[in-house]
Amino acid sequence: MSSSLGTLFRISTWGESHGPGVGVVIDGCPPRIPLTVEDIQSELDRRRPGQSKIVTPRKEDDKAEILSGVLDGVTLGTPIGLFVRNTDQRPSAYTEMAQAYRPSHADYTYDAKYGIRAVSGGGRSSARETIGRVAAGAIARKVLQQSLKGYECLAYVKTIQHLEAKVPETLTSELIESNIVRTCDPDAAERMIELIESVRSQGNSVGGVVECVVRGVPAGLGEPVFDKLEADLAKAMMSLPATKGFEIGSGFAGTLMTGLEHNDEFYMDGENVRTRTNRSGGIQGGISNGEEIVFRVAFKPTATVLREQKTVTNTGEDTTLSARGRHDACVLPRAVPMVEAMVHLVVVDHFLRQRALNA
Amino acid sequence: MSSSLGTLFRISTWGESHGPGVGVVIDGCPPRIPLTVEDIQSELDRRRPGQSKIVTPRKEDDKAEILSGVLDGVTLGTPIGLFVRNTDQRPSAYTEMAQAYRPSHADYTYDAKYGIRAVSGGGRSSARETIGRVAAGAIARKVLQQSLKGYECLAYVKTIQHLEAKVPETLTSELIESNIVRTCDPDAAERMIELIESVRSQGNSVGGVVECVVRGVPAGLGEPVFDKLEADLAKAMMSLPATKGFEIGSGFAGTLMTGLEHNDEFYMDGENVRTRTNRSGGIQGGISNGEEIVFRVAFKPTATVLREQKTVTNTGEDTTLSARGRHDACVLPRAVPMVEAMVHLVVVDHFLRQRALNA
Amino acid sequence: MSSSLGTLFRISTWGESHGPGVGVVIDGCPPRIPLTVEDIQSELDRRRPGQSKIVTPRKEDDKAEILSGVLDGVTLGTPIGLFVRNTDQRPSAYTEMAQAYRPSHADYTYDAKYGIRAVSGGGRSSARETIGRVAAGAIARKVLQQSLKGYECLAYVKTIQHLEAKVPETLTSELIESNIVRTCDPDAAERMIELIESVRSQGNSVGGVVECVVRGVPAGLGEPVFDKLEADLAKAMMSLPATKGFEIGSGFAGTLMTGLEHNDEFYMDGENVRTRTNRSGGIQGGISNGEEIVFRVAFKPTATVLREQKTVTNTGEDTTLSARGRHDACVLPRAVPMVEAMVHLVVVDHFLRQRALNA
Amino acid sequence: MSSSLGTLFRISTWGESHGPGVGVVIDGCPPRIPLTVEDIQSELDRRRPGQSKIVTPRKEDDKAEILSGVLDGVTLGTPIGLFVRNTDQRPSAYTEMAQAYRPSHADYTYDAKYGIRAVSGGGRSSARETIGRVAAGAIARKVLQQSLKGYECLAYVKTIQHLEAKVPETLTSELIESNIVRTCDPDAAERMIELIESVRSQGNSVGGVVECVVRGVPAGLGEPVFDKLEADLAKAMMSLPATKGFEIGSGFAGTLMTGLEHNDEFYMDGENVRTRTNRSGGIQGGISNGEEIVFRVAFKPTATVLREQKTVTNTGEDTTLSARGRHDACVLPRAVPMVEAMVHLVVVDHFLRQRALNA
Repeated sequence: MSSSLGTLFRISTWGESHGPGVGVVIDGCPPRIPLTVEDIQSELDRRRPGQSKIVTPRKEDDKAEILSGVLDGVTLGTPIGLFVRNTDQRPSAYTEMAQAYRPSHADYTYDAKYGIRAVSGGGRSSARETIGRVAAGAIARKVLQQSLKGYECLAYVKTIQHLEAKVPETLTSELIESNIVRTCDPDAAERMIELIESVRSQGNSVGGVVECVVRGVPAGLGEPVFDKLEADLAKAMMSLPATKGFEIGSGFAGTLMTGLEHNDEFYMDGENVRTRTNRSGGIQGGISNGEEIVFRVAFKPTATVLREQKTVTNTGEDTTLSARGRHDACVLPRAVPMVEAMVHLVVVDHFLRQRALNA
Repeated sequence: MSSSLGTLFRISTWGESHGPGVGVVIDGCPPRIPLTVEDIQSELDRRRPGQSKIVTPRKEDDKAEILSGVLDGVTLGTPIGLFVRNTDQRPSAYTEMAQAYRPSHADYTYDAKYGIRAVSGGGRSSARETIGRVAAGAIARKVLQQSLKGYECLAYVKTIQHLEAKVPETLTSELIESNIVRTCDPDAAERMIELIESVRSQGNSVGGVVECVVRGVPAGLGEPVFDKLEADLAKAMMSLPATKGFEIGSGFAGTLMTGLEHNDEFYMDGENVRTRTNRSGGIQGGISNGEEIVFRVAFKPTATVLREQKTVTNTGEDTTLSARGRHDACVLPRAVPMVEAMVHLVVVDHFLRQRALNA
Repeated sequence: MSSSLGTLFRISTWGESHGPGVGVVIDGCPPRIPLTVEDIQSELDRRRPGQSKIVTPRKEDDKAEILSGVLDGVTLGTPIGLFVRNTDQRPSAYTEMAQAYRPSHADYTYDAKYGIRAVSGGGRSSARETIGRVAAGAIARKVLQQSLKGYECLAYVKTIQHLEAKVPETLTSELIESNIVRTCDPDAAERMIELIESVRSQGNSVGGVVECVVRGVPAGLGEPVFDKLEADLAKAMMSLPATKGFEIGSGFAGTLMTGLEHNDEFYMDGENVRTRTNRSGGIQGGISNGEEIVFRVAFKPTATVLREQKTVTNTGEDTTLSARGRHDACVLPRAVPMVEAMVHLVVVDHFLRQRALNA
Repeated sequence: MSSSLGTLFRISTWGESHGPGVGVVIDGCPPRIPLTVEDIQSELDRRRPGQSKIVTPRKEDDKAEILSGVLDGVTLGTPIGLFVRNTDQRPSAYTEMAQAYRPSHADYTYDAKYGIRAVSGGGRSSARETIGRVAAGAIARKVLQQSLKGYECLAYVKTIQHLEAKVPETLTSELIESNIVRTCDPDAAERMIELIESVRSQGNSVGGVVECVVRGVPAGLGEPVFDKLEADLAKAMMSLPATKGFEIGSGFAGTLMTGLEHNDEFYMDGENVRTRTNRSGGIQGGISNGEEIVFRVAFKPTATVLREQKTVTNTGEDTTLSARGRHDACVLPRAVPMVEAMVHLVVVDHFLRQRALNA
């Protein structure tokens, strides 16, 4: 259903931006996994507003409460309920949006679909909805880390508008977290920060590309046909706010190669079947082959810009609208933990499905 | 599940390449929809081998049989079973593939997943699996055409390797079908045909990009959060064989724009809310806005090349493999009806879900 | 999944008996349905402890909080999060249960399944889990009442042990609610109250049968084959705690009749197709026929008895256990609103599915 | 969906009584399970018409064809397609049923739901639909037998109308199959055969109760809350044609006991936790406890009787109808393998779900 994801490790998020809070229920988490609220909070802190000078200055602590499914630091196997109370609400900032549809937001389409919407803060279409995903992703990661030795998911900002990061030979979480953009190239990071600050000062916004490398996924995860691993990753990424594209391995650029150039030759690395190149991006025929899973996600420039734009009212009249309020001039630094969370959620579900099939 | 797709209009495909046949069950098709076997056959003919000089010369008629769910040319509302018998099988062409893993195919990953596989013809990983999808898509289209005035889905080849088609102002199905590449630019078509014939003569292959325009989808389809319309389209496309990327509206190129440039301003067109530009690609916040839905899909160069490649055996020894057999040097002409079928399937499911919600 | 129910109107409950609280997420509720917290609270009050002298004297207010999905008294179409905080917890009453398995409870099976369990109050196996169902059922009823004129679901206690209520010609909600047993026969009610008080004073317990009549369900709801309306009702009822049997229409007694006696003859009642008898219980071939839906559910005597019983410990030693604490000597008065809630949930889901199919 | 069942071991049946045939797709069967068409055929032979003098004399061979998912006698892990062609069709026998609704059949409700139906042979509502279930059940049993030592499911006729079988101490498949009624009491079998022949000679019909004992299910299968093992069994049984009731363990009779009488005391049997009695029917809190699972299913007398009955036409006029054709005067002998098949399907699904959770 619309607010649920997963077959065996299934999450259901709920909550509007300016209601009492947002949350998630995780149904299907295996029992006896060590889990503390800090495991969750540390990931929420990576996505929360106000964490640095280049993200929205809204003051939301986003403190997670575990409401069920965990006892004495260990999962019970029963549904885990998580709740984050909304705090920093300034409905007044949204008064005029009640009538005018914000361009490239979901205001109009929600009205078209439901005939009603929670105007304040974007309601359900707010990126606050992703809190539940990030929290659930933190739990999924715990499950994977306990079962898959070497499992690691590293997302990072690859480009901001025309600025591109160099990806170093040795990619680490520490490197990515060493700068507030969450890119893997400290030099690029400085230029990216400047760019973001510059466009924000103009009331404008920029987008970019997040790249993600997943290590330690054994060969054999993913289902052929519809639930291919890359298909589920694509859906997961395209379900994040502001995403416009997904590509895996060679992606769109791979269409410029010939088959002979593009194919990944197999070779034996001791006991292991490996490929010399990784244009497949770690997945062949929908199933992981044991190589690193590598994909990219395009995020559009933030739709909220603090400049006057033409639009229409919900009663069908042309008008103009100037957004106020505190928004991200670039969503990518905060999108990095969202991408990682979605990876954890997709991989854990396929891991459990494979365990059922082939124990 | 792995071989099923959809919530209300749900399809389940089955069948291996060189077994008795392939098929699909469609569960949830509304009753009293006019449907003949010709409606289905005409779409299967667009995807079948041997249809032109630039596709694989295998001689498969791919004749569809309706086994249930239809009586006197009208759907009953009960599951529709469809069956296409396999005919042109030459298992001998696959003998050596029993042991050597074909590079960038699913041979190795199937073994890793299942510990067994149907070697001949690629078994379940063969593109023959898409027969069921194309057949089901033809039925989905009938449902949509009966309910949504002006519904139309036009996919076409946008690029083959470095060759790009110009998209004309007036795009029609006739134009696309006027050439065997299924592109919208007759001049480009000639060059594309030459390219495909040239790479084939070298035992090599090429890929490219399919673009798709969907018209007549009313505002309001798609679910916020996980089952966003673009997320389901992305999954559907990335579940097709050989796809490496998906982008909607402005896509990856949109990351080079600023928010002010990228936003789609609303205006009133008589009674209708419209946008001046369509960088959103017809979907905002996961929900259709009534504009044309526009997306692109990257298809890699065919993995089967008739040249010697290095690989390994299923017992862990390095070896070489030269594919024989009759294959597509470029899958895109046959991929066009597959893309359209997946669109029909995604849209009809969201159409029915919306009808349940908001009748 | 284990804690979710429904295809289009989908609920997910969460929460342990003695954790922070219990709740439910309802995903798929149509928009623009009037809904207040009182609509929900009034049903929770019918199931809560301490409501009368014949139910457990635990002091739980069970106050519902709406956390999302409702604005200004109207549903938004987005997930509705509901939360009831746990209050009256006396973990000390459960100390010895940590080791000894309570007979005919779920202590042993939870340990066998999960290797861990929340001992206090029964954790997830507590009947407190049904709070989320009753709350969700109240919302389902609102949806149905708005769409189906005359929709009404009346459950009542048919028997307590050997005591049987007479069902009057005119059955009303007021009659059922006129006595604390929730039976439809005031004379029987008195004897039933006496019986319950008597067994309780002996530390013992009794069970019985709830009968349920559903009116105003139009012909055509329910899916043939697996999701037959009676199959989904059976599952819903057998998913309630303490249920041991389900029968519809003529039920087990119907096996004593011949086909000629058992068949429900059709006749025209003005424009309407009706049946003279209703041995079918309002459902034929899995689909409602417009007659009253009538079924019965067997509830076993409460497993918690305040008498010494033989059992084993979780380390495999024979032992004895005497329950203490405050429990229901008979669950049926509180089970009545649970049965009704499950009916609402099953019917609304089939109602929405039918609306999708046949708008 | 309506024609699919299961979460991980998922089946989808299709087919009308008098169309080309009926079939099933099984998605999620583990790989490398030995499987031959005889494994399936032997179960189909137990449900097919014409197998004895007390069942319908229709001449249907019901020969199964495996269309996919199996190679060289072993499952591939991919969807298994099964097909049984319809042969003995006498549409003429159904001419007058095109207009008159057969009492207590699904004719009227199908029309109410779909506005159309396949009249001949009952179309989708025919018991021929259960062919796919029985075939799929045979496969599920193979999976279970390979993984669960001692797994065995024995269903048998407990009563035919007022005649009741004695259940012997030692219950075996051979005993049940030793008589054409499939009861566990040879003396009762004779009287039951007489009764069935007698009612048939009068053009009438009888029903009865099937009891089922499932052995070798380990403790821990089943999900708490909605997907309780008994809830899924109840749904599975109530989804079979002609069923009116389900009870597990003590069932409806258990409501006459007190809690002290009803509770199943635990004791240690060597290393194993066992219960002295089995009023729980092998399931506690929705989860198997390792004891035998015991339940009963009520089957109504066959609706088809060869006597004149009052009914109405599909155009709203009162009429009478006398069924002709060849029907079962009592469905129970053929229902026994159906009950077993549904048990296999429910248990294998929960077995795989548990394996995913707790490998």
